[in-house]
Amino acid sequence: MAQLYFRAGLHERPAQFDHYFRRYPDYGMHAAGYCVVAGLEWLLDWMRAARFREEDLAYLRAQRTRAGAQLFADDFLDYLRHHGHFEAISLSAIPEGRVVHPGVPLSVVRGPLAMAQILETALLNQLNYQTLIATKAARIREVSRASMVLEFGLRRGQDRGANAGTRAALIGGADFTSNVGLSSTMGLPPKGTHAHSLVQAYLALGQSELDAFRAFAEVYPDDCILLVDTVDTLESGVPNAIRVFEELRAKGHKPVGIRLDSGDLAYLAIQAALMLDRAGFADTVIVLSSDLDELVIWQIQTQIAAEAGRYGADADAIIHRLVYGVGTRLVTSHGEGALGGVYKLVAIHDGTDWRPAIKIADSPAKMTTPGLKQTWRLYDRRGLATADMICLDEEDPRRMEQIVLRHPVEPSMFRVLEPTALSGMEPLLVEVLREGHLVYDLPSLEAMRERRRADVERLDAGVRRIVNPHIYHVSLSQRLWDLKQELRRRLESGD
Amino acid sequence: MAQLYFRAGLHERPAQFDHYFRRYPDYGMHAAGYCVVAGLEWLLDWMRAARFREEDLAYLRAQRTRAGAQLFADDFLDYLRHHGHFEAISLSAIPEGRVVHPGVPLSVVRGPLAMAQILETALLNQLNYQTLIATKAARIREVSRASMVLEFGLRRGQDRGANAGTRAALIGGADFTSNVGLSSTMGLPPKGTHAHSLVQAYLALGQSELDAFRAFAEVYPDDCILLVDTVDTLESGVPNAIRVFEELRAKGHKPVGIRLDSGDLAYLAIQAALMLDRAGFADTVIVLSSDLDELVIWQIQTQIAAEAGRYGADADAIIHRLVYGVGTRLVTSHGEGALGGVYKLVAIHDGTDWRPAIKIADSPAKMTTPGLKQTWRLYDRRGLATADMICLDEEDPRRMEQIVLRHPVEPSMFRVLEPTALSGMEPLLVEVLREGHLVYDLPSLEAMRERRRADVERLDAGVRRIVNPHIYHVSLSQRLWDLKQELRRRLESGD
Repeated sequence: MAQLYFRAGLHERPAQFDHYFRRYPDYGMHAAGYCVVAGLEWLLDWMRAARFREEDLAYLRAQRTRAGAQLFADDFLDYLRHHGHFEAISLSAIPEGRVVHPGVPLSVVRGPLAMAQILETALLNQLNYQTLIATKAARIREVSRASMVLEFGLRRGQDRGANAGTRAALIGGADFTSNVGLSSTMGLPPKGTHAHSLVQAYLALGQSELDAFRAFAEVYPDDCILLVDTVDTLESGVPNAIRVFEELRAKGHKPVGIRLDSGDLAYLAIQAALMLDRAGFADTVIVLSSDLDELVIWQIQTQIAAEAGRYGADADAIIHRLVYGVGTRLVTSHGEGALGGVYKLVAIHDGTDWRPAIKIADSPAKMTTPGLKQTWRLYDRRGLATADMICLDEEDPRRMEQIVLRHPVEPSMFRVLEPTALSGMEPLLVEVLREGHLVYDLPSLEAMRERRRADVERLDAGVRRIVNPHIYHVSLSQRLWDLKQELRRRLESGD
Repeated sequence: MAQLYFRAGLHERPAQFDHYFRRYPDYGMHAAGYCVVAGLEWLLDWMRAARFREEDLAYLRAQRTRAGAQLFADDFLDYLRHHGHFEAISLSAIPEGRVVHPGVPLSVVRGPLAMAQILETALLNQLNYQTLIATKAARIREVSRASMVLEFGLRRGQDRGANAGTRAALIGGADFTSNVGLSSTMGLPPKGTHAHSLVQAYLALGQSELDAFRAFAEVYPDDCILLVDTVDTLESGVPNAIRVFEELRAKGHKPVGIRLDSGDLAYLAIQAALMLDRAGFADTVIVLSSDLDELVIWQIQTQIAAEAGRYGADADAIIHRLVYGVGTRLVTSHGEGALGGVYKLVAIHDGTDWRPAIKIADSPAKMTTPGLKQTWRLYDRRGLATADMICLDEEDPRRMEQIVLRHPVEPSMFRVLEPTALSGMEPLLVEVLREGHLVYDLPSLEAMRERRRADVERLDAGVRRIVNPHIYHVSLSQRLWDLKQELRRRLESGD
């Protein structure tokens, strides 16, 4: 396509592409009520470094047409050599960590048509996946309440891509990760526990689980978390852990806790908690792992709440001491392994003016929303987000006397808000790159997390539900709606 | 764990870890009948380059215990500086592209306990994902019969990890990919088509779909595949494509085909084929895309077979000309986004002898199979694989008078085979690394594909089914079964 644009003289035409997703992830029986956007910083790192190297150009030059001729001509390859970078690209985006919704442009790219087109795959690859995982992590955060969440997914992610998943999980809701390299990149300490193989090694050498635990406590007296399910959790693992904890206590150390990785985690957590309590270790944590996700965690909490009383245990205290180690199902977004984010041409410059572009697909829901736009988030009198309104770039809803929110597809559906019904409104897109130059302060991990916490706090409780959430309103302004209808009429009538 | 082993003087103890998966991927309503192993070459590349750099050691040195002390001691960090590499590791593996089954060690690692343990996450990360995707690709290959399959998933994979997915897809069954960088790495030409934005750009500039198609044909007269669903597939896209194809033909070029990316692909393929046939372009291809996977492709073929006749079209000829562009659902292994491959300690050297290690988990199915092993594939008189038998390393089934195949878990289930009932048997593991040195010729992509084709051809038709496959037998030899039982008894009785 880039060579075609080059040949047709269109390659330097300014164009705009919007990146957005059309629907929330649906994990099978339950769809998300909101997403958390992530991936921008790593995309920017890539864009600023990406170049066509001589070896890339040599590979392209070697490509042949079916008739045996050179597929990419030398003048085009020369264009790529000198202009095949993103230094002419401008980019606006919704900052990482923010809550986002379907149909709203998450990033908007403007620049020469050829290079803006070449950017498509890399942008989608990086933003779709991190947004998918930040969203899953936010759901796990939601059910985990105040408990610590540890990301454990590196062994089950997609090769090096798992690092991007870990980063997104940390933005979206995980506190720490066992991924050491990524922890280093993000400036966090890594957090994990030992594996079954430690106990197995000691057993194979004729020693015992207790010997293995003692060896661990010897090396890590102040960071002692013991995995108790290698032999038998309640008959062997927990009693041995308690014995080692008592030895640590006698030497003035404070044991941290145990990990359960198999079996009925709710039942075992109750029983282990009772045993630890009786031994005077009520302040230790119980780390759970083994194919956890937001529904499994919710189910464990529900079972503990229902069952703890029958064993004379305090359900709230048990739930409060849980730590969740979440691996496979977080890094792969179990139930929905991809975010369907798309990158659509929405405007192109004809030399005089910007011309909106539109695609009429089979379903109105897939029709792109044309032109240059800004999205405003409207907050109701409670301070909660009530709608995202996509407007024309030049519109400012703060100056509207009445705010008309049009459903993006259904002509008969709209809402009218008086400005007095709102406590505030803010634009979501910020300028990030201006012709290749970074004009944006990249936020720290803590700032992205704070943004996510603040945005989630300002969602209605119904939208925050992890199952069957209320549908958040994403609307078009009246003027944008009118433009979309007019373009459609024009295209259908062949004008 | 490595520091603990270092402190306990166990870090240089020879140890063996097996990598295997416990069950086939289950994509929701349908489980796989076999897997295709992949990922080894990239793992080897990583292993041969991996080192603890000074910056890594500095990060580790900065880690603190909860009591504020240095978590990793200087003598241990010094050990990592000098021995923190995989030069003492030996590795055997089942070659990439081979058909594999649950419970069979796909790779076997032997080496100093500390570094063999440190390898765990990287090995699982690389082999699990590529095996998952090669398996999905093999399923798509199975339903696609002789048709070309193009991999389109880069935009929906996990960041850089998508490249590993593309590689595995090419081993498992995809012919080409639109991922240009990975095509270059693998020595293939990239294959793709243009996007909707090409037509949109022309429309926005006041030109037509026909103008866009003509521009494409002008630049790529011998490689002309046109995406026909931007405006209206049958009313606009296909007629415009045919007009451009006629112009190409008049100039002596041979048009390649069209792509359908939305709507009822089976219906549209029939109608488009009829239109192309009537215009004399019966030898053009019809590329299908839009969330394809093995079931969707099967459904499309079934619908074409059932419906083509009513329109006077030849179903077989239509199915024969289809090309499948498979993206999201291949690169994410739709329905099962992770392979649950594990890495388990199975033996450790006590200074005199190898000592088998075992983990007794809650379920017998999760019990590890101990010791040093080789897996033999047995072929029946038809030349089809009838079972994989996991043996002790020193056993050679070619010298057995009777072959007893024990079910890995159920004591009452076994099969006895006379050697005369078999046409052949072969060991699956080959030696790859001997103390860090490559002692294995890395096969070409074509060799890996050929291995996969040959192995799939030697599966029973029932095992090849994409839905409800027959269960292939993975068995233990009598001696291995006896060892496992004895270890279990010993561990349970506390001896």
